[in-house]
Amino acid sequence: MKILLIGYGAMNQRVARLAEEQGHEIVGVILKRSKDAVPYPTYTKISDVKTADVAIDFSHPNLLLPLLDDSFNLPLVIATTGEKEEITKKLQQLGQTMPVFFSANMSYGVHVLTKLLEVAVPLLRDYDIELTEAHHNQKVDAPSGTLVKLYDVIKSLREQSYPVHNRHEQNDKRHPDEIGVHALRGGTIVGEHDVLFAGIDETITLTHRAQSKDIFANGALEAAKQLIYKENGYYTFDNL
Amino acid sequence: MKILLIGYGAMNQRVARLAEEQGHEIVGVILKRSKDAVPYPTYTKISDVKTADVAIDFSHPNLLLPLLDDSFNLPLVIATTGEKEEITKKLQQLGQTMPVFFSANMSYGVHVLTKLLEVAVPLLRDYDIELTEAHHNQKVDAPSGTLVKLYDVIKSLREQSYPVHNRHEQNDKRHPDEIGVHALRGGTIVGEHDVLFAGIDETITLTHRAQSKDIFANGALEAAKQLIYKENGYYTFDNL
Amino acid sequence: MKILLIGYGAMNQRVARLAEEQGHEIVGVILKRSKDAVPYPTYTKISDVKTADVAIDFSHPNLLLPLLDDSFNLPLVIATTGEKEEITKKLQQLGQTMPVFFSANMSYGVHVLTKLLEVAVPLLRDYDIELTEAHHNQKVDAPSGTLVKLYDVIKSLREQSYPVHNRHEQNDKRHPDEIGVHALRGGTIVGEHDVLFAGIDETITLTHRAQSKDIFANGALEAAKQLIYKENGYYTFDNL
Amino acid sequence: MKILLIGYGAMNQRVARLAEEQGHEIVGVILKRSKDAVPYPTYTKISDVKTADVAIDFSHPNLLLPLLDDSFNLPLVIATTGEKEEITKKLQQLGQTMPVFFSANMSYGVHVLTKLLEVAVPLLRDYDIELTEAHHNQKVDAPSGTLVKLYDVIKSLREQSYPVHNRHEQNDKRHPDEIGVHALRGGTIVGEHDVLFAGIDETITLTHRAQSKDIFANGALEAAKQLIYKENGYYTFDNL
Repeated sequence: MKILLIGYGAMNQRVARLAEEQGHEIVGVILKRSKDAVPYPTYTKISDVKTADVAIDFSHPNLLLPLLDDSFNLPLVIATTGEKEEITKKLQQLGQTMPVFFSANMSYGVHVLTKLLEVAVPLLRDYDIELTEAHHNQKVDAPSGTLVKLYDVIKSLREQSYPVHNRHEQNDKRHPDEIGVHALRGGTIVGEHDVLFAGIDETITLTHRAQSKDIFANGALEAAKQLIYKENGYYTFDNL
Repeated sequence: MKILLIGYGAMNQRVARLAEEQGHEIVGVILKRSKDAVPYPTYTKISDVKTADVAIDFSHPNLLLPLLDDSFNLPLVIATTGEKEEITKKLQQLGQTMPVFFSANMSYGVHVLTKLLEVAVPLLRDYDIELTEAHHNQKVDAPSGTLVKLYDVIKSLREQSYPVHNRHEQNDKRHPDEIGVHALRGGTIVGEHDVLFAGIDETITLTHRAQSKDIFANGALEAAKQLIYKENGYYTFDNL
Repeated sequence: MKILLIGYGAMNQRVARLAEEQGHEIVGVILKRSKDAVPYPTYTKISDVKTADVAIDFSHPNLLLPLLDDSFNLPLVIATTGEKEEITKKLQQLGQTMPVFFSANMSYGVHVLTKLLEVAVPLLRDYDIELTEAHHNQKVDAPSGTLVKLYDVIKSLREQSYPVHNRHEQNDKRHPDEIGVHALRGGTIVGEHDVLFAGIDETITLTHRAQSKDIFANGALEAAKQLIYKENGYYTFDNL
Repeated sequence: MKILLIGYGAMNQRVARLAEEQGHEIVGVILKRSKDAVPYPTYTKISDVKTADVAIDFSHPNLLLPLLDDSFNLPLVIATTGEKEEITKKLQQLGQTMPVFFSANMSYGVHVLTKLLEVAVPLLRDYDIELTEAHHNQKVDAPSGTLVKLYDVIKSLREQSYPVHNRHEQNDKRHPDEIGVHALRGGTIVGEHDVLFAGIDETITLTHRAQSKDIFANGALEAAKQLIYKENGYYTFDNL
C-alpha cells in the first residue's frame, strides 16, 4: 500500500517503521508546519497527495478536524482521541463517499476484550467485578484510558455500577454495585488489563497483555489493509 | 424445594449438605441397593417418590438410564457423564411431558467460559491457542474433562485444530493449527483452566478458577430452583 | 496427639475437625465460661488438664494472657493476635521450662513468602514494588493483615518506602519509594497476595494463594507435631 | 565506556544499540571474517584493540575459545553458551590477571529467580513443583534453556526429582518426585517462566516475565559497568 500519514508523533513513526518492514510505502505526511526531522514529503491538505491508497491518522482534533473539511476521496483510518462526537459525525458523512474506519483504541485485542465483556457481564449478573491495570512508572494518569473504556462497557450493561478507587481503612463490606478499580505502576510494563468476575466458589478472569505499543500501529495497518477493499461506508472494529 | 437425589456419591452428598444449609429438604435417595450409611429414605424407582418437587442426579448411566424408562412426572436436573448421546435422546423425549435440565458439567462458570470461547475463537482467528489446566495431585486422568470440553468448543470453530501434548525435545516451530494442552498437578488445587490466545505483541487469557467442588453441586441446585418454574421442555445452560 | 484447645472460635473448630480427621484427640477446651455447644470437656485453667500432649491456642489476649500466669508444663502453640509484645515476652519466659511456639499468622506458605521477600528485596533494589491482595466480599477491613505483614518486611529492608493506596486522578509519575497497595474484593475468594517487582523489561511476581482457611489450622497442627519433640525453648517458624 | 564486542549476532547488535543510547561507544567488533554489514571496525584478535575499556561477548565457543588463548588484558563480560566447563576453566585462569564476568544467562531477573528457588525449595519440602514456560511460536526447542536452568537448581536441592513432560492419557496419580515441565508456544511472547509450589490448601508461584530480549543485552551492559571497577578475579552474578 501507499500510505499517507496524518501526524507524525510517536505512534505514526511506529506505523512508518512497521509499514516499511512489511513492504508498504509512506508517500507523505500531513503536518501543520513542515519539520526538518520528517524523512518523507510533507503536506498540509489531504487533496494535495495524489498517489496514496489510504491515510492513517494518529494525531489530534486540532490537526484532524480542519483536514476533514477539505475535498478529497481517500480511504481513511482514524485514531485520534478527543472530540469523539464531532469526529464521529464528520466521519459518518465522509463514509458516504469513501470507506472510513474509526477507533479511539487501535488495539484489536482490547476491542475483542470489550466484545467478551458484552457477553460476560449479562451472563455473570451476580458476580462481583474488579478491574486492574498495570503500566510503566512514567505514566502520569490513572486509571488508563483502556480501563475507562472497559469500565464504560460494564457500566452500560449494569447501570447501577459505581467505581471504587480506594478501600484503605474502609470498614464496610463490598457493595455488589462497586467496581473496584486498581492501577499498578512499575518498571517498563507496556500495559496489562484484568477483569475479575468473582462468584461463589469460582472466579473468571479476562486478561489482556500488551508487549509493545506496536499493537496500536499494527492495528491501524491491519485495518488499512482491509479498508482499501471495502465499499464506501463508516466502519469500526464491529463491522470491518 | 423437596429434592429427590439420584445417586449418593461425593457430589450428591454435597448437594444434600448445601441444600439443607439453604433450607431445602432431601425427601429421598434413589440407589440400586439401599445402603445403611444413607441418612435419607432410599428408593429404587422415581415413581415411588410422591412428595418431591425436583430430582437432582449425579450418578452414572448404569443407574440413570433404566430409571428414565419408568413412568413418572418430575422436573429433572441430570448431571451424569458418559453415554451422552443416549441420555440426551431420552431426556429430549421426557422434555415433552416435564421440564428436564441436562449438563455434563454443572459449573456455571465453566459454561460461561465456553460461551466466551464461542465469541473469542472466531474474532481471534490468527491467534495461537494454548490450553492449560491444574488440579490436585490425586487426580489420575489428564487432561481434565473440562479441558476436553473447552478443546471441543475450539475444535468445532477451527476444524483444522489438533492437540499437542508434549513439546519436549521437539525441533520444529509451532504449527498454527496446534492447540497446546498442558496438565499441571499438585497439592490440593481444586481446578484451574486457562485459555491463552497469543497474537502479535498481545495476548488475551481467559481463566476459570474453582475454589471448591461445591460449584458443581451449587450449579445443580441453582438449575433446579429455576427449572421447577419452567414449562415442559429440554433445557441446558443455553436456554434456561 | 492429645490436644488441649485454648478458645473455641471458628479457627479452633477447624483445628478440632482436622485433628480428628488425622487421628488426634481433643481432650478439652479452655473457655472463660463453659458453653453448651462445645462437644468436649471444658476447663478454665491449663493446669486442670492432665492428659494433654500439647495446647493449641487461637483465642485473644483477654483469654490467653491470664492463663499464662498459671503454673503448668505443656508444649504450647500460640496464634493469638494483638498485644504481641506482652505475649512474646511471657512466652519467652515460659520457653525456659517448656517448648513454646508462636506465630500471629499460622500459614506456613505466608511465612515462606516473607522469607522470599527478605532475599528478593535487597537483590531487586531498583525494581518498583506493588502489593495486591484479593479476598471475599464479606471482609470489612482493607488491606488484609497479611498484606500489612508483607509491607512491613519490605519497609524494614527499604526504609524510605511509603504506601500509596489510591492513584485515581493523580497526575504524577510514580516515585521509586512508593509501594502501591491494592485490595480487591469479590465473591468467596479465600485469600491471594501478589508481590510485583517491576524493572526494565522484566518483572518478577511472587504469589501466595490460599484455598481454605484450613491452612491456618493445619499450620498450627503441623507446628504442634514438631513442637512436642523439641527441647524447651521459644520457637517461631524461623527456628522450628 | 569504550566497548569491544565479541561476535555481532542479534544479541550484540542489541548491546550496540543500547550502549550507544546510553552514551557508550563501540570501538570494534571481533569476527572470524570481516563482514560488510558491520558498522564498526572489525578485528580478529582481542590484543589488536588498544582503546577498549571492556569486551562484551555474545558469541559461541568456536569464536570465543581461540580468542582466550591470545595474550591481552581487558575486563571481559562473557555470555557464550555451550562448552561451559572449558570456558569456565579458562576464564578462571584469566581472572588472575584481569576481571572476568561469566553468565550463560545475562538476565538479572532470571538470576534472582534462581536465588529465590535456592531458598524456596528447602523450605517447601512437601510441596509439589511444576515448571511452565511460554515463548513465541518461532522457537524450535522446548523446554527453554532458562527452564532447564531452573530445573537444575531444583534437582540439585531435591536429588530424587525427575521431569515429566506429558501427562496425556496417564492413569496414575502424580508421584511426589515428579517435576511437571510445560512449554507453551504462541504469538510473539518474549519469555515467561513460572515455578508453582502446590501444597495443602495453598500454592506459591514465582513468575519471571521478560518484555524484551533487551534484558540480556542490558544485563551484560550492567555487568560491564560494574566490572571495570573491580579487582582481578572471576565473577558471576553471585559475587559481582
